[in-house]
Amino acid sequence: MSEGLVSLVGAGPGDPDLLTRAAVKRLRRADVVYYDALVAPAVLRLVRRRARLVPVGKRRGYATLRQEAIEAHLVADARRGLRVVRLKGGDPFVFGRGAEEALTVTRAGVHCEVIPGVSAGIAAPARAGIPVTHRGLASSVAFVAGHDLLDGPDGDQVAARLDSLARGADTLVIFMAGAHLDRLAAILLAAGLPGSTPAATIENGTLPGQRVRRGRLEQLEELGTGRGTGPLLVVVGRTAGLADELAAPLAAGALFAEAGDSGTTTESTAIAAASPAAAAAPVAATGAAFTLRRTRR
Amino acid sequence: MSEGLVSLVGAGPGDPDLLTRAAVKRLRRADVVYYDALVAPAVLRLVRRRARLVPVGKRRGYATLRQEAIEAHLVADARRGLRVVRLKGGDPFVFGRGAEEALTVTRAGVHCEVIPGVSAGIAAPARAGIPVTHRGLASSVAFVAGHDLLDGPDGDQVAARLDSLARGADTLVIFMAGAHLDRLAAILLAAGLPGSTPAATIENGTLPGQRVRRGRLEQLEELGTGRGTGPLLVVVGRTAGLADELAAPLAAGALFAEAGDSGTTTESTAIAAASPAAAAAPVAATGAAFTLRRTRR
Repeated sequence: MSEGLVSLVGAGPGDPDLLTRAAVKRLRRADVVYYDALVAPAVLRLVRRRARLVPVGKRRGYATLRQEAIEAHLVADARRGLRVVRLKGGDPFVFGRGAEEALTVTRAGVHCEVIPGVSAGIAAPARAGIPVTHRGLASSVAFVAGHDLLDGPDGDQVAARLDSLARGADTLVIFMAGAHLDRLAAILLAAGLPGSTPAATIENGTLPGQRVRRGRLEQLEELGTGRGTGPLLVVVGRTAGLADELAAPLAAGALFAEAGDSGTTTESTAIAAASPAAAAAPVAATGAAFTLRRTRR
Repeated sequence: MSEGLVSLVGAGPGDPDLLTRAAVKRLRRADVVYYDALVAPAVLRLVRRRARLVPVGKRRGYATLRQEAIEAHLVADARRGLRVVRLKGGDPFVFGRGAEEALTVTRAGVHCEVIPGVSAGIAAPARAGIPVTHRGLASSVAFVAGHDLLDGPDGDQVAARLDSLARGADTLVIFMAGAHLDRLAAILLAAGLPGSTPAATIENGTLPGQRVRRGRLEQLEELGTGRGTGPLLVVVGRTAGLADELAAPLAAGALFAEAGDSGTTTESTAIAAASPAAAAAPVAATGAAFTLRRTRR
């Protein structure tokens, strides 16, 4: 019997086409896959049929399995000789608790590897027409965990660090900030960011249900209202303003690429949803892309 | 004749297994590929044979083609109906000038899409055993362009922003800082980071020639000496210290995974080089992994 291995695999931001080749290989030979709530169903469809699929996600505070229990399962299954995949949204080492799992698994003397993934912090804004860096506008970008920053017991110290980040980073990408948009905006404004700074909220980035709302920092709370249950990513910085020009053409370009592709309907729809307009009318999206092209030339 | 399209494609950090499925699709149907010097040869081998491969990279200040000329080529080729791929190391929107190209191409009325990639700023540290975030140690990470920050005409303002970043970000990842390690260390120390803060330099991250040097912030200049011509990534923060525990097991785990894989020798070698020791003796690397395993149990 072969020896076990735990692969901490980044599932990317949602669109299964943004999985890495290494991730797909791991899914196709897995014996068991422990997956987060953030992992898209289309990604799970790539898992080998006879693998056991175990949801261990946390949504709205309700965890199906505690962190320590997840780690114990990873170790126990690998010791039985299984090829264990721990599948995490985005990248395993970006706010994914992947490092905790890597430490536990390796301390148990079990083989462990990490397969980096495309971070939602970069890809979701890109799909929305927002480059996180841009020559002349942004030569730095910071990724921050919103729930850590704002929920901690030492709130003042945490706010002080976010204040420094706002002064130092040209683009701020805040993960999991959905419940704290008012506090977040207040800290950033107090740090001196103009209320007119471009801002965006992105829900279900790169997925069929992607929803992008753009505006100004002073409207941040409003940009988060009426959202669904998906994780919310917040982008604040001058590059968010480039979406005025880039969002529609990039969404149309992706549609155009898919139209000439052998991709499945699911994949087309996923990309069609890159713009709010396309998401509202996914059936007509491909046609819309061609119309846009004809209008532009 | 089909209409043209410019795909701005992230090639990931180097290891061809870290390309996304979307990137591979674009490479396999490209008519022409304009690629950066940072793109690994193993990635270029995936390009469709009859595609034209055009190097447009910049190394040590020498550019084969100026930025404006590259953009003009992208537009002209797409207008001829070609499927044009602009292949960039890491992610196209992270210090890659991808946003400039997206703006130029879409302003010309040409279809454009962006395929996000795995950023070297996350994956190269991961391969070296450094998670950029970790519960309790780092709930924020900042990516900074070292050459932009330190070469600009307004050096003082730039240093002030880096000072703020050092106070706000738990982990700092500095791209392209090779020529400025002394200035970088001085700014971070002046911002109050202890000289004992863990730091690492990574050259050719995730590639067979990957070279990792770890130490403390006060040794930063020394950690960059004797390096080759590859781009240098600098990581500063407490999570860099986790590599003491994670670097060897993660490198061994990756080797172990590849040993049971149907991957090519090239790919095995690429992953074998994840640890400096393995890079020094790639032939014996797989054996070394098994020895390590036996020792650990």
